[in-house]
Amino acid sequence: MKLTGTILLLCGLLLAQDERAAMLAKIDGKAEVYGKMSRQIWEYSEVGYKEAKSSNLLKSDLRANGFEIRDNVAGIPTAFMATWGSGKPVIAIMGEYDALPGLSQHDAPQRNPRVAGDPGHGCGHNLFGVAAELAAISAKEYMEQHKLPGTIRFLGTPAEEGGGGKIYMIRAGAFRDADIAITWHPGDRNQAGLQSSLANISGKFRFRGLAAHAAAAPDAGRSALDGLLLMNHCTELLREHVPQETRIHYIITAGGDAPNVVPAFAEGFYYARQPNMPILDNVWGRIQKCAEAGAQGTETKVEMELINSVYNILPNDTLAAMFERNLRRVGGIKYTPEEQAFAQELAKSFNREKVLPLGSQEQVQPLGGEGLGGGSTDVADVSWVLPTAQFTTATFVPGTPGHSWQSTACAGSSIGRKGMMAAAKVLALTTIDLVTDPKQIEAAKASFEKRRAGFTYRSRLPADAKPPLTYRDKPQ
Amino acid sequence: MKLTGTILLLCGLLLAQDERAAMLAKIDGKAEVYGKMSRQIWEYSEVGYKEAKSSNLLKSDLRANGFEIRDNVAGIPTAFMATWGSGKPVIAIMGEYDALPGLSQHDAPQRNPRVAGDPGHGCGHNLFGVAAELAAISAKEYMEQHKLPGTIRFLGTPAEEGGGGKIYMIRAGAFRDADIAITWHPGDRNQAGLQSSLANISGKFRFRGLAAHAAAAPDAGRSALDGLLLMNHCTELLREHVPQETRIHYIITAGGDAPNVVPAFAEGFYYARQPNMPILDNVWGRIQKCAEAGAQGTETKVEMELINSVYNILPNDTLAAMFERNLRRVGGIKYTPEEQAFAQELAKSFNREKVLPLGSQEQVQPLGGEGLGGGSTDVADVSWVLPTAQFTTATFVPGTPGHSWQSTACAGSSIGRKGMMAAAKVLALTTIDLVTDPKQIEAAKASFEKRRAGFTYRSRLPADAKPPLTYRDKPQ
Amino acid sequence: MKLTGTILLLCGLLLAQDERAAMLAKIDGKAEVYGKMSRQIWEYSEVGYKEAKSSNLLKSDLRANGFEIRDNVAGIPTAFMATWGSGKPVIAIMGEYDALPGLSQHDAPQRNPRVAGDPGHGCGHNLFGVAAELAAISAKEYMEQHKLPGTIRFLGTPAEEGGGGKIYMIRAGAFRDADIAITWHPGDRNQAGLQSSLANISGKFRFRGLAAHAAAAPDAGRSALDGLLLMNHCTELLREHVPQETRIHYIITAGGDAPNVVPAFAEGFYYARQPNMPILDNVWGRIQKCAEAGAQGTETKVEMELINSVYNILPNDTLAAMFERNLRRVGGIKYTPEEQAFAQELAKSFNREKVLPLGSQEQVQPLGGEGLGGGSTDVADVSWVLPTAQFTTATFVPGTPGHSWQSTACAGSSIGRKGMMAAAKVLALTTIDLVTDPKQIEAAKASFEKRRAGFTYRSRLPADAKPPLTYRDKPQ
Amino acid sequence: MKLTGTILLLCGLLLAQDERAAMLAKIDGKAEVYGKMSRQIWEYSEVGYKEAKSSNLLKSDLRANGFEIRDNVAGIPTAFMATWGSGKPVIAIMGEYDALPGLSQHDAPQRNPRVAGDPGHGCGHNLFGVAAELAAISAKEYMEQHKLPGTIRFLGTPAEEGGGGKIYMIRAGAFRDADIAITWHPGDRNQAGLQSSLANISGKFRFRGLAAHAAAAPDAGRSALDGLLLMNHCTELLREHVPQETRIHYIITAGGDAPNVVPAFAEGFYYARQPNMPILDNVWGRIQKCAEAGAQGTETKVEMELINSVYNILPNDTLAAMFERNLRRVGGIKYTPEEQAFAQELAKSFNREKVLPLGSQEQVQPLGGEGLGGGSTDVADVSWVLPTAQFTTATFVPGTPGHSWQSTACAGSSIGRKGMMAAAKVLALTTIDLVTDPKQIEAAKASFEKRRAGFTYRSRLPADAKPPLTYRDKPQ
Repeated sequence: MKLTGTILLLCGLLLAQDERAAMLAKIDGKAEVYGKMSRQIWEYSEVGYKEAKSSNLLKSDLRANGFEIRDNVAGIPTAFMATWGSGKPVIAIMGEYDALPGLSQHDAPQRNPRVAGDPGHGCGHNLFGVAAELAAISAKEYMEQHKLPGTIRFLGTPAEEGGGGKIYMIRAGAFRDADIAITWHPGDRNQAGLQSSLANISGKFRFRGLAAHAAAAPDAGRSALDGLLLMNHCTELLREHVPQETRIHYIITAGGDAPNVVPAFAEGFYYARQPNMPILDNVWGRIQKCAEAGAQGTETKVEMELINSVYNILPNDTLAAMFERNLRRVGGIKYTPEEQAFAQELAKSFNREKVLPLGSQEQVQPLGGEGLGGGSTDVADVSWVLPTAQFTTATFVPGTPGHSWQSTACAGSSIGRKGMMAAAKVLALTTIDLVTDPKQIEAAKASFEKRRAGFTYRSRLPADAKPPLTYRDKPQ
Repeated sequence: MKLTGTILLLCGLLLAQDERAAMLAKIDGKAEVYGKMSRQIWEYSEVGYKEAKSSNLLKSDLRANGFEIRDNVAGIPTAFMATWGSGKPVIAIMGEYDALPGLSQHDAPQRNPRVAGDPGHGCGHNLFGVAAELAAISAKEYMEQHKLPGTIRFLGTPAEEGGGGKIYMIRAGAFRDADIAITWHPGDRNQAGLQSSLANISGKFRFRGLAAHAAAAPDAGRSALDGLLLMNHCTELLREHVPQETRIHYIITAGGDAPNVVPAFAEGFYYARQPNMPILDNVWGRIQKCAEAGAQGTETKVEMELINSVYNILPNDTLAAMFERNLRRVGGIKYTPEEQAFAQELAKSFNREKVLPLGSQEQVQPLGGEGLGGGSTDVADVSWVLPTAQFTTATFVPGTPGHSWQSTACAGSSIGRKGMMAAAKVLALTTIDLVTDPKQIEAAKASFEKRRAGFTYRSRLPADAKPPLTYRDKPQ
Repeated sequence: MKLTGTILLLCGLLLAQDERAAMLAKIDGKAEVYGKMSRQIWEYSEVGYKEAKSSNLLKSDLRANGFEIRDNVAGIPTAFMATWGSGKPVIAIMGEYDALPGLSQHDAPQRNPRVAGDPGHGCGHNLFGVAAELAAISAKEYMEQHKLPGTIRFLGTPAEEGGGGKIYMIRAGAFRDADIAITWHPGDRNQAGLQSSLANISGKFRFRGLAAHAAAAPDAGRSALDGLLLMNHCTELLREHVPQETRIHYIITAGGDAPNVVPAFAEGFYYARQPNMPILDNVWGRIQKCAEAGAQGTETKVEMELINSVYNILPNDTLAAMFERNLRRVGGIKYTPEEQAFAQELAKSFNREKVLPLGSQEQVQPLGGEGLGGGSTDVADVSWVLPTAQFTTATFVPGTPGHSWQSTACAGSSIGRKGMMAAAKVLALTTIDLVTDPKQIEAAKASFEKRRAGFTYRSRLPADAKPPLTYRDKPQ
Repeated sequence: MKLTGTILLLCGLLLAQDERAAMLAKIDGKAEVYGKMSRQIWEYSEVGYKEAKSSNLLKSDLRANGFEIRDNVAGIPTAFMATWGSGKPVIAIMGEYDALPGLSQHDAPQRNPRVAGDPGHGCGHNLFGVAAELAAISAKEYMEQHKLPGTIRFLGTPAEEGGGGKIYMIRAGAFRDADIAITWHPGDRNQAGLQSSLANISGKFRFRGLAAHAAAAPDAGRSALDGLLLMNHCTELLREHVPQETRIHYIITAGGDAPNVVPAFAEGFYYARQPNMPILDNVWGRIQKCAEAGAQGTETKVEMELINSVYNILPNDTLAAMFERNLRRVGGIKYTPEEQAFAQELAKSFNREKVLPLGSQEQVQPLGGEGLGGGSTDVADVSWVLPTAQFTTATFVPGTPGHSWQSTACAGSSIGRKGMMAAAKVLALTTIDLVTDPKQIEAAKASFEKRRAGFTYRSRLPADAKPPLTYRDKPQ
């Protein structure tokens, strides 16, 4: 009996493997259709909260595949939920599709903007959203075919790049009944792990002074730009006196209209990041003091608009291990000779040390340990609310810096699309693993509880904050 | 015989007075038509070198009035010469029609932009060009009627506000055969005088660094914004160590694209001004050192594009006296009760001391003495090339600051149009005076020679500089 | 009778001229003694409020010459009043004797400090005090000899260089019964005039933060130096937005003890100057805001100690004319061949334009008109309290910059002493003119009243301010 | 035989233990004499390279104890070598005795300077030198008594606090024939370990400009202070763009003499630190660019004097283990009730988190692992030349910050002296261990070779650099 049981189990496993292999083959068959969709979104290159065409493309396809769409989630026109199935477990698969300002680029290995100054998919979110959608559809087909109970929910989450779409979706209850949230991210390697990310607070500091003719009556003016420059200097002085893992960076989004007028308005856009949210709260408070000092010393006024605030990622041991396993099953990325030539040409423009070598895209990296990535993401907020994890595939040539014209080029090329297909497979496999093995869900929940250790998530965005739908617009 | 001569002369003078009164009456009869034209240009609000519609409007009307048009002067699409008549003297009348960025405003006495962030006629150049054109046409009609020899040339001079249109027109020979150049400027008073202006050099400093992820690899980035901020600080330190009449002012026209990327590009737009061009040369050289220091210290690169350079005005005693006389003949501006109410309401928004009181628009101010205005103009370059002068009429409510929403409001209102009509009359009268009295031209030339004292005009713009046709565009 | 009167008057005048010539001859006879005294004080080189030996030297000699000494005026050990005579008029003659930090120099025409870093008489106050004293003694001898009624009061006024000794002496009543106050100042020319000076407010800004190991725990520190640097930057930004005649300058008197400790203390010493005291009040208030901003932004504390505040000089038409007349009587300075060689060598180190040429020391310059000198002096405060004036003689080689090693060298040389003797003569002559001609005193008082136009003098030093006796000490 | 051998070995060990116990008892008997010596040096409080009296005290005592003194090592008056014995092994014991500027303090638990502004032993080097000397003498007595071969060399190493005395002593060959170098350091705990330290480069940046009267002719001046302020700002901007473990800190050692003179001289004293010397080289190069930018932008000149440069410590596994063992033998520090009261009072002034609690001074902490301390020391340079190690004992109340008035107070108190005696014992024991067990020396050498991995030590000080004997003097 014991032997019989073992044989049955083995047969089951072999059968399951066959069934999954069939699913992967089916996904392969859709490479062209979904490759085109990702290219279309790459060409749209819509920035955060403006992803109307991109989200519509995904919604149409999900609807055509039998998902029920809930639109305008959290009052955001480009946020949506697409649901198929019913009952437990509820697996949330998240997709992003926003572009980055100023990174327009052809799918060429030399700097060459499609439209100079326009946005571009330097973070590969055109691949991100499509792979996640394809995974959702593929898992649904599998479950349908095998009559598996459970719910697949694709979450269309806009404005990851500084807009915090997921935070407003959490508030709107979009994750309330989900058991697990999974997703991936484009990268220069195939890897899952336990790495965290930096908590992040961002805000715009708006200085208002008194205009005056800069030559005829400069003493009658109070320069808003002076206020901002003083704030900047104060922040530079602050750098020495915060814990070294802190990151503070800013740009000037408005620095005067015409040189012959003392600027009555100036605006700085600040980010502060830290592995630890309470320490970050303190740093942000000190940056606000810098802003007040800027205004105080120049007889101008300042107000701060909190643009976004995300947490550090809470890793999940169970989900990381599942991703790792499925990454190994799916395997790495193989380049054609043309892709190899593109990669070699592109790599000439990297002036970075300690990067993975060309060729590494063919392997799966070892499971990443605890540690700290340099980035931030609103996936982190989800990770403090329910068990959540993501992994990367090599959509970018190894060594490609993030948020660069080079990553934009890859995201529009066949190299990017190959990585996207791998990601879709890993997500689909993991979803099926979760649906078919409730113990994995239990283990993931246990890891979540252990790691958060009683800490209660509370976003730093005010309770009445509205999504900053125009945060990418030029200031007036 | 002597007596007879005197009688004849007197008769001639009286006759001339009558004839000129007729000309003024004729001008009055055109108030509505040219008022509308000025309002149309006010609504166009086209910035420097982009004044296509505004210049076309003026050209059409000049052509319709028998002027011969030479287009595209100095390779500038919106620069033109309109000539009528032949032979000596050649009287050049200059007209401007460019608007200022960010000053959009309704013709209302409270701040209320027509389109927030759009340009507006805060310097009243919509009135400027139309009054000059009307004067040219009126003088031509007078000369035609009285069969007077000589040439009237209207010069359509674009981009006075920082673009230096007249400098390129000088180079292109637009003033070569002219004897005298006259014009006016909108103001808050009716006045001619000997005041000079500030020589001005302006340029854009473009810093280029190395982009990097601002959180993951800030040490791999070289911030172009840092370079610009350091240059700014250096310039602030410089202020103490230049002659006190110097003015230096700047804005930041590009300060980074997104906070999470170390800015690879930043741009500052600088003006420096001085009553004396050789001293200004020295100051500008030191600002360039500040730029080099900014780049040097931050491991970035900087290049400077010279945008504009104008001289200080060389006053002309003869022309100032002629304007003064004709201003007194034409007289001040009378407000209707509605205009009076508008003026009172508007004046509430002025927080300035030592301004002319409401009501002063009805008078002509005494001839202004030597002295220094706070502004700069490319009329100054013309003034070092041939005898040149300008005067102001009260197109703005007394006390209105220059380059403000308040002056934009006046420039679009009936108050502005009344000042414009007065200016057209003074310009027309002065033109006829010059055409009919060659001694005035001789005297003006003598004053010119005495004041320039052998100094040879040479623009600080490089010999091969092209007009900066896109200087108002956002940087890429 | 009328003729007789005229003859008598003429005889009187001639007699007076003879008597005054005798006085001048007597002064010449004392050149060696008083020359040595000035050299002695030059060698002492005692800074403000520390002039113990210098003031004792003057007091001894005044006492020996029959003056009654009142010591420790206004609680200042080095301030004193020396009085001779009784009744009206009371003529106050002011003398200064403080040196400047860091200007130690041999009486050589090349840079060569006597003790590197030590103070030096770069303002020639070693000559200043001695000439004034010699004038007081000479006038006293003249009055004694001619039995003239009246009081001569020498005021030993310490710490003119930023310490404001005269202000505390005014408060202590030292000028209460005086009719006129006169004095002179070393210079590079012989001249009286109507020039004013800059009102001046100075203060020390002391920042206090939190020390920490700069490498092990920089985030635990709050840098007082950061606070001061931010204040400085704020002040640099302020320069653009104050009236152009304003002067703001500062040094850093404490900037940290050791680089490996986050500085818990830092101190800046600020001066602000303006031709107009109420405008200066406003500027000073804005500098204080800069200080508050510095503290606010860096989480440090700041306190300001007002060190000094002097007014702009109120010129006096009558006294200026009297000085002018007596300067012409005394005549300029003649150099020996050795002095000429010294002057030529020294002049090689001047890199200044528009200075008086060598040789001009032999002439008396025309009476100076209204205008503004670049310096400040506490003589100005006296000038708002009673009719006051000063003039210069050429104690320095023409073209010598003020407060320089070059002026220190002159002040210790025979050139300086010759200028000093001329000054003593002019002061003595003017004193006798005032004592013998009450109408001059009336005229001086009338000029004083007309110019101050009802303005009530009030020092910006707090009513309870104590003299800053240690303002030259290094901060702890 | 085997048994006999074991018995003999055990007897030997027991005997050795007895003999060492006798040595420790002997050391205890000298507590008063050497306590007084440490107090005397604490009262001298001589800063780096000025430790004449302190070094003489140590030399006298070493001479009196039979050591042969070599004076003036490396041309440094306060550096010396004291040698006893002959032949191998040669054990170097290093002692320091320099004080820190500005840390004068009574041995009281409240802030109370002995002489405000004076130096103080905030790093406890008064204890450091004496304990090391006492260990050398004690080891020598032990060796003499037991007729052990070998050489004990005490190295009197001045100016550890930023002066780099040991580097010049290395160059002078002071470590050439030594096998091992050991020492200790005062601390707030009893611990040995493998911790490293930060490599450090320090230099003075001297700006020279052009003096001018700051009110009369500020445009004629070129401010050296401006140059330094711009360099500082540049450095602040640099902080974001260096690896996060980098430390940069500076003070202003000369910031102008008097506010009314444009500063012709200014000086900044900079430190930069990094765990890695080649990265530090790069950072230091960039700081020099900041200096050049400061000069470039302000038309001043700058020159850098390299003051010091030390390496990061190369830990030694063998020596760390030996210290650990002997620390456990000697044990912790017991307070009397008075000392306990002092400690409690002192602890009130600590505003630090995560410090060891009161009472922990009684224990020995576990062996410290690899890691990075925040400090720097020239012991590190020795550690790249031969096997070297140090440990700490609790001379300071647990939680006492380094370089503070609190540590100065402890260093002058009985608490400090108790820690010193413990250190002397551990050093003496370890010396005897090394002398009697050559295998330990071999092991230490093996650890040294393994860790340095072929890297060749080369000090960043120029080959011809002279010891900066006046680096603590005020700039002229």
